[in-house]
Amino acid sequence: MQPNEFHIMLLPNLSADTQGILAVPAAPFTLKSMIPTLEWTADGVRFLDQTRLPLEETYVLATSYQQVADVISTMVVRGAPAIGVSAAMGLALGVSRSQAATVPALAAEFETMCTTLAATRPTAVNLFWAIERMKSRFGELAAKTGATPAHVRDGLIAEAQAMYEEDIQACRQMGAHGAELLPQRGGVLTHCNAGALATCGYGTALGVIRSAVEQGREIHVYADETRPFLQGARLTAWELMHDGIPTTVLCDNMAASLMRQGKIQAVVVGADRIAANGDVANKIGTYGVAVLAKEHGIPFFVAAPWSTIDLKTPTGEAIPIEQRSPREVTHHAGKQLTPNGVGIENPAFDVTPARYVTAIITERGVLRAPYSESLQELETAASR
Amino acid sequence: MQPNEFHIMLLPNLSADTQGILAVPAAPFTLKSMIPTLEWTADGVRFLDQTRLPLEETYVLATSYQQVADVISTMVVRGAPAIGVSAAMGLALGVSRSQAATVPALAAEFETMCTTLAATRPTAVNLFWAIERMKSRFGELAAKTGATPAHVRDGLIAEAQAMYEEDIQACRQMGAHGAELLPQRGGVLTHCNAGALATCGYGTALGVIRSAVEQGREIHVYADETRPFLQGARLTAWELMHDGIPTTVLCDNMAASLMRQGKIQAVVVGADRIAANGDVANKIGTYGVAVLAKEHGIPFFVAAPWSTIDLKTPTGEAIPIEQRSPREVTHHAGKQLTPNGVGIENPAFDVTPARYVTAIITERGVLRAPYSESLQELETAASR
Repeated sequence: MQPNEFHIMLLPNLSADTQGILAVPAAPFTLKSMIPTLEWTADGVRFLDQTRLPLEETYVLATSYQQVADVISTMVVRGAPAIGVSAAMGLALGVSRSQAATVPALAAEFETMCTTLAATRPTAVNLFWAIERMKSRFGELAAKTGATPAHVRDGLIAEAQAMYEEDIQACRQMGAHGAELLPQRGGVLTHCNAGALATCGYGTALGVIRSAVEQGREIHVYADETRPFLQGARLTAWELMHDGIPTTVLCDNMAASLMRQGKIQAVVVGADRIAANGDVANKIGTYGVAVLAKEHGIPFFVAAPWSTIDLKTPTGEAIPIEQRSPREVTHHAGKQLTPNGVGIENPAFDVTPARYVTAIITERGVLRAPYSESLQELETAASR
Repeated sequence: MQPNEFHIMLLPNLSADTQGILAVPAAPFTLKSMIPTLEWTADGVRFLDQTRLPLEETYVLATSYQQVADVISTMVVRGAPAIGVSAAMGLALGVSRSQAATVPALAAEFETMCTTLAATRPTAVNLFWAIERMKSRFGELAAKTGATPAHVRDGLIAEAQAMYEEDIQACRQMGAHGAELLPQRGGVLTHCNAGALATCGYGTALGVIRSAVEQGREIHVYADETRPFLQGARLTAWELMHDGIPTTVLCDNMAASLMRQGKIQAVVVGADRIAANGDVANKIGTYGVAVLAKEHGIPFFVAAPWSTIDLKTPTGEAIPIEQRSPREVTHHAGKQLTPNGVGIENPAFDVTPARYVTAIITERGVLRAPYSESLQELETAASR
């Protein structure tokens, strides 16, 4: 089979009760660079299976909110903004599949749906933000005179679809704000995948790169492979090649050497949660890249939508860090790498203290230190 | 098949003309912690196949110098000190297999053998040091009155065996010198494998750790997995578990986070070449670890035998860095990780500037900055 050939397969690593998920062929894309990470359809929520990229472009259709939860926890879909909108769509799907005859009965079911989806991944705050927004919308819809389950359902589907559109719009705005921070010509390092595949399209960090390329800047992307899940080698490389942006993959431990050789002019990464003081939780390895960037005098940018900013969390110390299965480190492609019984570390994220962050790029604008002030100012301005 | 079960297989990835290499079962070990990385035998040079560890403990017997060259370039044996002694044994083997009737005829063949072995790997200076030492010994033996090919052969076999014994002795001395630099109790990070498997036994960086443990220090080793060849996950983990030393494997990009959490009290690594100013070439990723150690105030130690020190190379800038096949990065266990056509970086080594190195541990003693002075002093003292 040729790489990038369209291919239909069932998802192998979901739990037994979700094996009924349907795999469907890819629909034609309307935008050339649009990558269909996730999509609301009449039959359920359709996801591009990111565990099978880059060699297989396979889609899975989740037809229940439980299946959406499994799709999130098994990383068929990943990336903080995409996780948030996936959860919203999961809730809309759950409500639309409900047989509840009354709004109070639906509300009780909805509470269970929210609990299930919130338990999938602890670090990305967009997940909780999306669930809260859907809860709030549920409350508004249910409070209307004569509200029926059908009214609530239609309102929640519309809300999830609006979040999807807003996410793409936010990425475009981040791109517009951030592009000028990148060099006219040079190497830009990124870690993990903060691209179209981590959002509803276009990307956060990769959106900034796409926007810079659209402006005519000559960017060569250096993509950390990002062990253990290899989001950089598999996903970032795949989506940048899809758009024809020159890309080189490196092992994570090679970044320092490339910086010292002068090949990297800027770093741009995404985020899973940004605390009120500007500390950034992102994919494991981000903190090390930030330290290296500082040591080499290279600017370190974080691009994230406002839904990633968690003003209720004072500092990075308070961000919960997900520990994932040791098997992601000990095995690859079914083959064991390590001796039996050895200890394994597998934190999925780390925290980069705000002092390493040159700027935070959001859809509302570019923020600079001190972040505790600039974040609060932009929050206050937006709520006026 | 169970891990660490003895197993006999032919070497799969040597070039066609070396497929005649014999695989032989393991001999009983005389020392409990002695790992038979390489060994001179009556039938040829026997190597523990490091490409198959940790799950298969397989040996290959090289019966010609060309086979030894292939064993080095395919990384069946690796690690600067082990490469040096392997080359010396390869030359002894080549000379012992030669049909040359006169010493001048043998000298001409020997020149070819040296050229072949020198072409295997460019960065580890121990390779060139070992070849030079064997050349020098050849000259001495050939210059003796009435020298015959048999005399030269016996002398070169003895020389290679002496280098083997000296290497183990040097590791033990490094251990004795370096152990007190490690904490009484704490985490020690290492990168790649600078252990028994990288030497003729005991190890350089891991020799220092073994010695510290023998002294009763409570060391927990954190082993960077070391992409792309996974020497840490496969080899360091295997040999430390063999000796019952507590070990945790981490992906390279997790080291920064563990340092920030206070889990690492010292870093100790090996070296492939140390320049006259103290710049250290070692496995790719070492430089990044050194920068992270500095940022966290953690001492960064380099352990290497004197044969790794190259006073003819003024600084790290002049050390040639081997670029290895992109396939080591793009594939694992035969499975492709990256999309077709993406650019790949795969330098095998990087250079850590001397200013990041807290101390260099050698069999002659522990050196401190300024290294250009301390290295020269110890060289002069030894040659008196």
